[in-house]
Amino acid sequence: MTQFDYRARLDRAVVEMERRNVDALLISLGSDLPYLTGYKAMPLERLTMAVIGRNGEAVLVVPELEVPRVEPLPDLFEIKPWSETEDPVAIVAALAGAPRTVMIGDHTWAVFLLALQEQLPDTRFVSARPLTETLRVVKEPAEIELLRRAGRSADTVAGLLAEHSFAGKTELQVSHEVSGMLEGNGTDVAGFAIVASGPNGASPHHEPGDRVIGPGDAIVIDFGGTVGGYGSDTTRMFHVAEPSARYRQIHAVVLAAQKAAVAAVRPGVSAESIDAAARSVIAEAGFGEFFIHRTGHGIGLDGHEDPYIVTGNDQRIRPGMAFSIEPGIYLPGEFGVRIEDIVVCSESGAERMNTSPREVAIVR
Amino acid sequence: MTQFDYRARLDRAVVEMERRNVDALLISLGSDLPYLTGYKAMPLERLTMAVIGRNGEAVLVVPELEVPRVEPLPDLFEIKPWSETEDPVAIVAALAGAPRTVMIGDHTWAVFLLALQEQLPDTRFVSARPLTETLRVVKEPAEIELLRRAGRSADTVAGLLAEHSFAGKTELQVSHEVSGMLEGNGTDVAGFAIVASGPNGASPHHEPGDRVIGPGDAIVIDFGGTVGGYGSDTTRMFHVAEPSARYRQIHAVVLAAQKAAVAAVRPGVSAESIDAAARSVIAEAGFGEFFIHRTGHGIGLDGHEDPYIVTGNDQRIRPGMAFSIEPGIYLPGEFGVRIEDIVVCSESGAERMNTSPREVAIVR
Repeated sequence: MTQFDYRARLDRAVVEMERRNVDALLISLGSDLPYLTGYKAMPLERLTMAVIGRNGEAVLVVPELEVPRVEPLPDLFEIKPWSETEDPVAIVAALAGAPRTVMIGDHTWAVFLLALQEQLPDTRFVSARPLTETLRVVKEPAEIELLRRAGRSADTVAGLLAEHSFAGKTELQVSHEVSGMLEGNGTDVAGFAIVASGPNGASPHHEPGDRVIGPGDAIVIDFGGTVGGYGSDTTRMFHVAEPSARYRQIHAVVLAAQKAAVAAVRPGVSAESIDAAARSVIAEAGFGEFFIHRTGHGIGLDGHEDPYIVTGNDQRIRPGMAFSIEPGIYLPGEFGVRIEDIVVCSESGAERMNTSPREVAIVR
Repeated sequence: MTQFDYRARLDRAVVEMERRNVDALLISLGSDLPYLTGYKAMPLERLTMAVIGRNGEAVLVVPELEVPRVEPLPDLFEIKPWSETEDPVAIVAALAGAPRTVMIGDHTWAVFLLALQEQLPDTRFVSARPLTETLRVVKEPAEIELLRRAGRSADTVAGLLAEHSFAGKTELQVSHEVSGMLEGNGTDVAGFAIVASGPNGASPHHEPGDRVIGPGDAIVIDFGGTVGGYGSDTTRMFHVAEPSARYRQIHAVVLAAQKAAVAAVRPGVSAESIDAAARSVIAEAGFGEFFIHRTGHGIGLDGHEDPYIVTGNDQRIRPGMAFSIEPGIYLPGEFGVRIEDIVVCSESGAERMNTSPREVAIVR
């Protein structure tokens, strides 16, 4: 990931710390650390934490046995290894000095925050999200290019799935097939593949299981993976044999909602106005109560990140913001329909990262 | 996972809350939630949190769109869905009442703990680990049986690897092959497969990469997955063509250390005494400074959990505790050797969950 200018990112972080009167920034699990350093901590009980001071000094506290993993890190951070019998929280607290205000990364485990609060009782701890969001929410051209490549790979898989055979397979089998297709077609790491058939489609986050797919089933496939750490996330609809008129009607409503939301994207609009654009189409068709989630979420190094496309979020959309647009209608006991693309806001409106056909694919 | 008595587990949790004078137990990401409920929260920004009161009342706060995932939950918890425009932290805070002391699950994201602390300013928040560790550290027979099955699957893969061809493949290729072998031989979900060849073996948590394996390479393969949620974790050594005398010597030292630590396991000994048993063998052979990590970690629903087999941990080992024994010697620029089994303490000593040969396997 050496295509990124980590020095510039760290400098921006320090500027934001000044502006917000923050004395130390503590970053551990999640994507803030790879954003700032190119290094991703292992999600384990041994603490890895970057300690960034307002003077720009930056130290990466890391378990001794993981130091060899960190070595490719750009020469930005001092590496401070801790051995198995040391207390890494005490090391972090000492490095932080006697800070009045500390920002801590959102995904840091509670156990470490509690230990830090105990060791720094006079410090005010606040969420780093306002700062990290400022850094990360507008994507650099190199980040957008990775999102584009991830999207293209997912589109290739959508094309393969339209020719695929489903009947007689379990959801879990198909889910594994989708993961294999992603990794065979340009995705570095397959991330997830929701396969929700028939009535299971009414559960937006359905866990693919033993249900055998058969004739008459609508199938929601929501899948993605990463290229260079940046995600794809797209949902397409498949149907074994010809769908009912009711299915066709619902699909048309969701598709119209998705188009309306994409058309609403341009610099300066609020996130919630994009949500409203999708929601009003579905409500007017009489299915408002069955659209039980927000219209979308930002995407980048995290699968879900700012900006969230949701009622109540008046954040303004700017060029370079990347997010999903994924309205859905979920009919309990019947089926669900969701259509999802990633878009990036450009000066002139939405650029879609996904361009595979959004019509339902009739499959075997 | 209905083989477990979740009611009994919840009752034990409430007894422990009484004993520790805790008013509410808040459990979110990680394995405490599936331990108590059979349900695992999605590691996303929408909060899922169990709120358990000292009176035994238990509510699972869950995103509305994930409610259909939760339905198989035993009839223990009231389900409290929250919609996309509600504040789940406010719902949790209201359910918790005005608690003096709250225990919060270790893997909960810091952002949620900070928000809870703001909404419950008079509450003392402490780590739930002492309580959850008490519940989880001694495994029930059904849990041990799953560990046994996971271990057998990993042993089958170790056997296949001893006949496998390595030269000319990258570490990453072999890592993918190991994952495939696990899932093809009884493991539900492959979790990880460290493949560290030649000098990369000196990095205990090496990330498998583009290095092409060739003649003369020692290869550390540390791999595992889960059966019914319970993990395997074993490390075996492979060598392309005949190893050097130096390799043979180091391997023999690590093997002797591993045997000594396994032999040290019995009810009533301290965790650190098991570490010392391995460490002294390696130190006496003159390689103490190259054994840069603890001897082991507990295993169950988490890949790493209590008890930790490490200097300074005087916790007493009891029948039913499950943990790894994995000494290693890491020679920078040369190679690494690690040998790892999972063991369960029985009344008479260690039962090994892994019984595949621990000698180095000479491979192509």
